[in-house]
Amino acid sequence: MQLGIIGGTGTEGRGIAMRLAAAGVPVILGSRSLDRAASAVAAILASAGTLPIEAATNGDAIERADVVVLSVPFECVGAVLDAHRFRFRQASLVIDVTVPLVFAGGTPSLAPVAEGSAAEFVRARLAGAVRLAATFKTIPASTLGRLDAPLDCDEFVCGDSIEARDAAVALLARIPTLRPLDAGGLDAARTLERMTALAITLNKRYKARAARFRVVGLPPL
Amino acid sequence: MQLGIIGGTGTEGRGIAMRLAAAGVPVILGSRSLDRAASAVAAILASAGTLPIEAATNGDAIERADVVVLSVPFECVGAVLDAHRFRFRQASLVIDVTVPLVFAGGTPSLAPVAEGSAAEFVRARLAGAVRLAATFKTIPASTLGRLDAPLDCDEFVCGDSIEARDAAVALLARIPTLRPLDAGGLDAARTLERMTALAITLNKRYKARAARFRVVGLPPL
Repeated sequence: MQLGIIGGTGTEGRGIAMRLAAAGVPVILGSRSLDRAASAVAAILASAGTLPIEAATNGDAIERADVVVLSVPFECVGAVLDAHRFRFRQASLVIDVTVPLVFAGGTPSLAPVAEGSAAEFVRARLAGAVRLAATFKTIPASTLGRLDAPLDCDEFVCGDSIEARDAAVALLARIPTLRPLDAGGLDAARTLERMTALAITLNKRYKARAARFRVVGLPPL
Repeated sequence: MQLGIIGGTGTEGRGIAMRLAAAGVPVILGSRSLDRAASAVAAILASAGTLPIEAATNGDAIERADVVVLSVPFECVGAVLDAHRFRFRQASLVIDVTVPLVFAGGTPSLAPVAEGSAAEFVRARLAGAVRLAATFKTIPASTLGRLDAPLDCDEFVCGDSIEARDAAVALLARIPTLRPLDAGGLDAARTLERMTALAITLNKRYKARAARFRVVGLPPL
């Protein structure tokens, strides 16, 4: 399996690249600029040691990947998908990790999205043969990037099909100290994206930086 | 402090009554019918031993309580508030625990509420001098009622003012094994009510009955 990350130079993209590469997944870290992708990869390797991460343009990353993580700021998602719509492989899996956060006076909330959530916005702009899951919505980006710190939490996965969810769950299950949970259909992203804002609110309220979620009461999975 | 529970004969109302009474809070368990309230109280005392719980009509419970827990099915909330609107004490605190759940083919989702959430629906129907918090949205009702089982989770509190949230947080903090968290303004209920549906989805997916939430990454409170 080859994983590509679109918008891989941001904090979230780098963190996902590091966690998955450290779990043995080959990662292509994409950026609009190949130079910036290469700099980000060099910085990751300098800090984390040898990991299977290489740099590419976003377009190349999409064309070469079986699984494409969409990790650009939400306000760029539409333009990125428009530009690269025909580069996705037929049966590829897209993983949306975007959250349409806005801050008013320091308080986070969600920008209204006509489709109901960022994930549903993405679904409406992908070819039908491309499957879509949404995850990595509720773990802080900075926490993902600290490879030495265990995640010790759950991460929710939703998707447009059982196949998409199972594939994303299996991918996340490769990351030690993280338990992926199948949260159902893509409209569950409406909940997960709100939970991002909730976690940020809790961080501010309790002077923390890494609030994230664990579900209590499930049997051993 | 005197606590009243409107709709106290339901699973959720009984569970809240038991947990708070066991923590030493005097509870008036209200129902439309005094007889049904009395039966519910008798059943609780028979199973849990001596607890400071007494029965009343909903109207009497509202008139006598400083803190009123609103625990009727969401579709009845409007009618109950219309009927009792003038019985609330001036500076009383109302705690909304309702969730506008609907099930389609066994899948839970939220009924659309014009105000944005059940809590905001309640706010629009209370007198201005009455404060409102929302909580007990994400712990399963049946879990609340099993006094011998530790809750071992967090419960989110939101409210229309810092005072309302602080009062609700202080109330919940009396329950052992439960950590209340201040989730901010009343619009956070839009998130918390969705999280109820998420917990039910996880219960079904993983054949569990008591999925609930814990926030990881906060400093000791």
